[in-house]
Amino acid sequence: MPDVSKRTEQLTGSPIRRLAPFAVAAKKRGRTVYHLNIGQPDIPTPKAFMDGVRNAQIEVLSYSPSMGLPATLDALVSYYAEHNIELSSDEMCVTIGGSEAFTFALQTTMNPGDEVLIPEPFYPNYLGNAIVADVNLVPISTRAENGFHLPPSEEIEARITTRTRAIMFSNPGNPTGVVYTREELERVVRLALKYELFVISDEVYREYVYEGKATSVFDFPELREHAILVDSISKRLSACGARIGVIASHNKPFMATIGKLAQVRLSPPSLGQYGLAAFLRDPSHTETIETMIRKFRSRRDTLYDAIQTIPGAICQKPAGAFYMCVKFPQLDDSEAFARWLLTDFESDKETVMVAPGSGFYATPGKGNDEVRIAYVLEEKKIVRAVEVLGRGLAAYEKVRKEVETPVS
Amino acid sequence: MPDVSKRTEQLTGSPIRRLAPFAVAAKKRGRTVYHLNIGQPDIPTPKAFMDGVRNAQIEVLSYSPSMGLPATLDALVSYYAEHNIELSSDEMCVTIGGSEAFTFALQTTMNPGDEVLIPEPFYPNYLGNAIVADVNLVPISTRAENGFHLPPSEEIEARITTRTRAIMFSNPGNPTGVVYTREELERVVRLALKYELFVISDEVYREYVYEGKATSVFDFPELREHAILVDSISKRLSACGARIGVIASHNKPFMATIGKLAQVRLSPPSLGQYGLAAFLRDPSHTETIETMIRKFRSRRDTLYDAIQTIPGAICQKPAGAFYMCVKFPQLDDSEAFARWLLTDFESDKETVMVAPGSGFYATPGKGNDEVRIAYVLEEKKIVRAVEVLGRGLAAYEKVRKEVETPVS
Repeated sequence: MPDVSKRTEQLTGSPIRRLAPFAVAAKKRGRTVYHLNIGQPDIPTPKAFMDGVRNAQIEVLSYSPSMGLPATLDALVSYYAEHNIELSSDEMCVTIGGSEAFTFALQTTMNPGDEVLIPEPFYPNYLGNAIVADVNLVPISTRAENGFHLPPSEEIEARITTRTRAIMFSNPGNPTGVVYTREELERVVRLALKYELFVISDEVYREYVYEGKATSVFDFPELREHAILVDSISKRLSACGARIGVIASHNKPFMATIGKLAQVRLSPPSLGQYGLAAFLRDPSHTETIETMIRKFRSRRDTLYDAIQTIPGAICQKPAGAFYMCVKFPQLDDSEAFARWLLTDFESDKETVMVAPGSGFYATPGKGNDEVRIAYVLEEKKIVRAVEVLGRGLAAYEKVRKEVETPVS
Repeated sequence: MPDVSKRTEQLTGSPIRRLAPFAVAAKKRGRTVYHLNIGQPDIPTPKAFMDGVRNAQIEVLSYSPSMGLPATLDALVSYYAEHNIELSSDEMCVTIGGSEAFTFALQTTMNPGDEVLIPEPFYPNYLGNAIVADVNLVPISTRAENGFHLPPSEEIEARITTRTRAIMFSNPGNPTGVVYTREELERVVRLALKYELFVISDEVYREYVYEGKATSVFDFPELREHAILVDSISKRLSACGARIGVIASHNKPFMATIGKLAQVRLSPPSLGQYGLAAFLRDPSHTETIETMIRKFRSRRDTLYDAIQTIPGAICQKPAGAFYMCVKFPQLDDSEAFARWLLTDFESDKETVMVAPGSGFYATPGKGNDEVRIAYVLEEKKIVRAVEVLGRGLAAYEKVRKEVETPVS
């Protein structure tokens, strides 16, 4: 029997995948499981989007052009202009979700063995993508204590080698909810210019900012040839299944290469593109998004206040996205704790599922005292889930002390 | 300004892309261009498919599971069973078109620098995929004179090295329309077993067979652990824009790896999956496909008869797909000829666009006397297009003789 390739052997499944069967089993045993682990919005997909799909006049559902349907690209040009981002339709390519945008970015900027700097903790699929592209993620440490903001310039610079080709991050951030200030992004800009690095900015949570405004990689004119935008409509439109993303850059050789990669995989899905174009043409689209944001802001406040009631919890109020990374110094294996919540914890027949922090780190051993909590639940459930989490933590500590105390 | 990666520099655009602007210009000059170059069906997408998309009860258009929606996987299990292919739902993964299925197959079977044997001419995106995956396509020569059937076993075996990890092909074939006999596939099977190779079989044109029946890679029980199916619904459902494909294998470690790769890119598009499930649940789906096939069979016959009227044309009647590769020994640069047809040829204000053969070969210099002709036009237009092509060839020869004859 022939063997699978060595390059794919390095792919480990995510902790969430390993935990999923335990959640299923807990439900079978009649327990309510509050899912604080889920990364996809629960808000109905806007009507204008779904109508755009349903009412598209399609006789032959043909390939879209590799770079995207002209109507969709035009709608995106307007959308970015609304956010003060000037892009022409030939400076962008519709991708198969943000995932493909990110894959394209790595393939286009990096040769095998090259390095990309990335603040840690980060979105776990970045690592899988890096493995498949045979490039190395070089983590820059950030900490719960200061809300996962970027370290001083020297700390970032110290990680740059002759193989470094890019700095990347999501901003607003998954899993931390951090929104980088203009000042801290300037650190990145200076280093990118000094060392001729690309800056790959994943801005899929652009509108999900609850204090101020997110800074785009395109807000720095001096970075014109270095800036790469990775984007996705999944989050802002609650339309994850449409698989429509964007990669954009002012750098012409970069976009020419994207054009060739886009051809190799033929085309992005047509149906979701009809939906997106219709949504963005709808005059009330900004309002629709703002309504979503208001809901998430309120949930964030509720979650943050609830978390403060758990003894020992360390986190700053996140300014964006719909995640929060919380450090619980009493934990030393957050995956074991998350599993225990699903398999052993009993609290009025309720339990909670969280994403173990270790899944968001490349550095071995890190994140074992952290969990990611997503607020894509109704507020009443968020409050209840955090109560259950707090009781779970207390019970877990007690059980562990009993185990550790030798029976005399 | 940072440079793009060396790995993507090897990606060349396709000849069709280079020709496209000339076709646009020809139309602007008021000429009719018959597109014999197009590889996508022109038949309306079945109603059951589009109804499946339009009527899906979707409140939140959420991610599909990485391996596909359960309803879609179940429908696919039944579909394959109708074709005497026994696959369980955990032996397949819904992919983003056949393109992603093929990408996954390369990533899972091959390390960087490994080799995959492939009969030449082949579908051009295989080459782009191989470049991105950093693997080498090792072509096996086939010839127009014998309908592009496989060479004797010794010829294939002579290309196997210590780096060879797989043999792959499309069957029925793009661009040749060849349908491999069971006997010639047995040559492949014996070599795969002898050298422990995977066999990657792209069967997207499964039903498009006009004599007999296509043989699937799963028709060889001894190949159980070696056989990998690449599939797509685009062609058989005239739904290219849905971007729904399949990768399937009985090999458990292989499918476990596919599961990890599927997670890294999150999920295939949901909308097309609703369409596919609805189409396959429709009791008349087989009839719908058969109606399409009848139309293509008739077109093939018409095209083949028309081609026979062009002096010098070499081709055997293709048994499948909707392509034909025709050798014109009088040509020595089929891309130059194809361009000339669009830029210089005038015949009653009509011209024709063909796909140059060179785009389907990895071996430099090959295919310069061949063109691929797709029969996705109405028959009347096919007849007219071939008449125009014949006149074009004659005129081109005349012009070239004039150029070559020194003016005295």
